Amino acid sequence: MHFMTALKAAWRQRNSLLCVGLDPDPGRFPPHLAGRPQAIFEFCREIVDATADLVCAFKPQIAYFAAHRAEDQLEALIEHIHTQHPAVPVILDAKRGDIGSTAAQYALEAFERFKADAITVNPYMGRDSVEPYLAYGDKGVILLCRTSNPGGADLQCLDAGGERLFERVARLVAEEWNANGNCALVVGATFPAEIARVRALTGELPLLVPGIGAQGGDIAATVAAGRTADGCGLIINSSRAILYASQGQDFAVAARRAAQETCNAINACR
Amino acid sequence: MHFMTALKAAWRQRNSLLCVGLDPDPGRFPPHLAGRPQAIFEFCREIVDATADLVCAFKPQIAYFAAHRAEDQLEALIEHIHTQHPAVPVILDAKRGDIGSTAAQYALEAFERFKADAITVNPYMGRDSVEPYLAYGDKGVILLCRTSNPGGADLQCLDAGGERLFERVARLVAEEWNANGNCALVVGATFPAEIARVRALTGELPLLVPGIGAQGGDIAATVAAGRTADGCGLIINSSRAILYASQGQDFAVAARRAAQETCNAINACR
Repeated sequence: MHFMTALKAAWRQRNSLLCVGLDPDPGRFPPHLAGRPQAIFEFCREIVDATADLVCAFKPQIAYFAAHRAEDQLEALIEHIHTQHPAVPVILDAKRGDIGSTAAQYALEAFERFKADAITVNPYMGRDSVEPYLAYGDKGVILLCRTSNPGGADLQCLDAGGERLFERVARLVAEEWNANGNCALVVGATFPAEIARVRALTGELPLLVPGIGAQGGDIAATVAAGRTADGCGLIINSSRAILYASQGQDFAVAARRAAQETCNAINACR
Repeated sequence: MHFMTALKAAWRQRNSLLCVGLDPDPGRFPPHLAGRPQAIFEFCREIVDATADLVCAFKPQIAYFAAHRAEDQLEALIEHIHTQHPAVPVILDAKRGDIGSTAAQYALEAFERFKADAITVNPYMGRDSVEPYLAYGDKGVILLCRTSNPGGADLQCLDAGGERLFERVARLVAEEWNANGNCALVVGATFPAEIARVRALTGELPLLVPGIGAQGGDIAATVAAGRTADGCGLIINSSRAILYASQGQDFAVAARRAAQETCNAINACR
């Protein structure tokens, strides 16, 4: 799968900019899954199967698997998505960032071991720390730019020679690091004016936008600020509001309903 | 183990500022380990046992384990260090960085699952992305500041309101994030003048210094720039120059010799 091609096809064919983030927290699973050895995989598989036709991507967050010694369940989950929902690209949310020789190992982890179609990467260590991912031309490399958390401004909004640091990152990625056409940026939904600024700086670059749902970002403002001329250009992530829409036996049905509502709310603004 | 207490004790009692970085690359292992199912663990265990009395810390780099589906071998390695060399703290080099709820999962991974005594963390996402680690008051939180790789300057040396970004990070950590006294900073050996600047900004904060050995940093300049008044304050990392001092059966003996020479070279400059 070529990530950018698959993403654009998913935007059009599924008529969805929604990405479901897979952040499985066993403490919030429905009671019937409690104590099952593959509970993390089973929970995520049900969410995936219930929502796959409504999304442009899935985004498993690796920390939620690693904290529970469940890398094998993450492998099984991504394999399940590729097998059962082959049109839906998988973004591994790992936010890696290290010197080139180590980044090459992380790229192996993400692309060869887990078989992700894209990975999130932290830009703080600069170009050579990103190149091992960029070299996989068919994989997506999604750089942190302006993040949705309260401390995101601590560094990202500092004035860096006449522009804010996240603007410098946006320009670096759009103008220099995207030679293979496989880059995207993370810009939080909690700051629509900054989404608009990043859109202005980066042309048609896809933007992965976390922060709607549990984090409180506004869908209409996000879409208005970030969509491209064709009404696409955004990968709008929701995790907790969908995964935990119900904590009962009906969690997958409730997740589908929440995903459908979110997808519709996004589409109403495109 | 309290990381800062253990580190200071190791500096004094072992008379060493050397940290051996455990970046196991199976392609560079001696032939007799080839194909063995626990080769990564066995290689690292021999390095650890041959050098433990010469170091102030060990620093396993998680990517080298994750790329080979060898998290179990990393768990076994850290358990081995704690059991056989209980005075030597273990720094998990993971460079994590994510929103608070995800950072809490990474902290579980590092401190509860792998039982590391300290972790490296990326500061790009700001204070709340670091707080879950800081909350473990007995664990070390080592923030990236000025890294040793060629692209390190891309963002870190941008002028950020009258100071360079890495100087802002150094001040944030020393003045705000270090309330529990468990912070340290990563500053590459390839830029001694910048080590001196960080030292001037941060008082006695420990500095983890990669970049000697294979990356070409100068030991005398590093020690002169970064030591504290008592001749300590530095965790000087060498990985490849020690791990692969020989690729024959004698690799552990050769690693000890290289570690001893490096430790002596550092001590000659303190």
